[in-house]
Amino acid sequence: MRLKVYADRMSEPSRAVVIFCKINGIDFEEIKVDLAKRQQYSPEFKELNPMSKVPVIVDGKFKLFESHAILIYLACAFPGVADHWYPNDLFKRAKIHSVLDWHHSNLRYGAVKFVQNVALGPALGLPLNPEAAALGEKILSAALDKIESFWLKGNGKFLLGSNQPSIADLSLFCEIMQLEVVDEKDRTRILGPHKKVQQWIENTKNATRPHFDEVHKILFKVKERLQQQQSVAAISDNTSSTKTTLHSKM
Amino acid sequence: MRLKVYADRMSEPSRAVVIFCKINGIDFEEIKVDLAKRQQYSPEFKELNPMSKVPVIVDGKFKLFESHAILIYLACAFPGVADHWYPNDLFKRAKIHSVLDWHHSNLRYGAVKFVQNVALGPALGLPLNPEAAALGEKILSAALDKIESFWLKGNGKFLLGSNQPSIADLSLFCEIMQLEVVDEKDRTRILGPHKKVQQWIENTKNATRPHFDEVHKILFKVKERLQQQQSVAAISDNTSSTKTTLHSKM
Repeated sequence: MRLKVYADRMSEPSRAVVIFCKINGIDFEEIKVDLAKRQQYSPEFKELNPMSKVPVIVDGKFKLFESHAILIYLACAFPGVADHWYPNDLFKRAKIHSVLDWHHSNLRYGAVKFVQNVALGPALGLPLNPEAAALGEKILSAALDKIESFWLKGNGKFLLGSNQPSIADLSLFCEIMQLEVVDEKDRTRILGPHKKVQQWIENTKNATRPHFDEVHKILFKVKERLQQQQSVAAISDNTSSTKTTLHSKM
Repeated sequence: MRLKVYADRMSEPSRAVVIFCKINGIDFEEIKVDLAKRQQYSPEFKELNPMSKVPVIVDGKFKLFESHAILIYLACAFPGVADHWYPNDLFKRAKIHSVLDWHHSNLRYGAVKFVQNVALGPALGLPLNPEAAALGEKILSAALDKIESFWLKGNGKFLLGSNQPSIADLSLFCEIMQLEVVDEKDRTRILGPHKKVQQWIENTKNATRPHFDEVHKILFKVKERLQQQQSVAAISDNTSSTKTTLHSKM
């Protein structure tokens, strides 16, 4: 029976799992759970994951959620996966766990808070909250500082000084890619000071191509749509401010 | 060379690691990092963990932080550790990863936010914030609901329907024990509706005794001190309100 992956490619951890399957030649069926349509709250999906989150995998009778747990399971259960993704070496593996655990309350927490509150919230039925966005940016920037100065220490092309990517690279990289949907000047302000992070993003893109491009296609489409909406809003703002000015002169 | 564990027993994940070492007969040296004295920010400690968090272990030349990563490492590196703590079985192990990953943004996030904002904040140099406490309680209660209805599903005494504890039980249990320092009526309101959680707490206490009692001693001392402070504050409040009443009659 083929592995089933329940995912929405607009979700960072979903993309990490889908790219992992593709790059490692795992035969799988991708089933879309549309977060914008709130399909994660359907009774059928809640049977798979009562936490109403994607991704979820079903491998025969075995169901699993939480993307880090899924990536580890896939790396161990499918014999074709190259060792660098989740090395057998006890020490290397422990460091990968450490990065992944750190991710939850730092990079992920900050990035989700920021991106939802400046861009994606309305698509998920949530309001944009500038105060929450500011807090999100603070946490996100602190996390990027730590990636730059600590997790990318050394001369390796990837996290933990490695020359090949691990599941930690994939997970954190997909998180940061979500910043594509925010305003260009916001992204430049946040990512600009982190040169090593920028180089690592390029390295991870290159290491995961062509799957990176294909799986992130939807993100770039959403980015385009949001940019168009912003342009329309800016024109409309200018028009209304002209009107206001005219009005106030009357 | 003996394993070194840098910890503060007032920290939930520190207690989990210390109990794990003791219960599995791991020979270790515990080095206190006093969070109330902000020792986690010292240059010496930042050499061990630039994130300024406890616990950290040093095993020979190998340094590691993030408590879940540490528990997994210890279970794999020390041959005396019983299999039930971190089973070799791929499927059981994957489920334990799933619980541990879920923990970060749910039980831990809610519990820390709540406990710091109703009780422990001032000891760490942070103000008490009733609004943050209310949000923390909401997230904490939702997490307890999920433990009750999902992670404790079945007839096992422990998480995931097991009859013996795993590192996931230890980690989540130490988190919930932190509620000991909050006001009795708050704890009753929050834990009261969760009968299976209460029974699981008792099961985990019993399974980790006598180490549970010894390692949590400091928490119970802090609880006693906070209760005394509250009694004094209540008496002083009564006195001042009497005075105010008298004053207003004047």
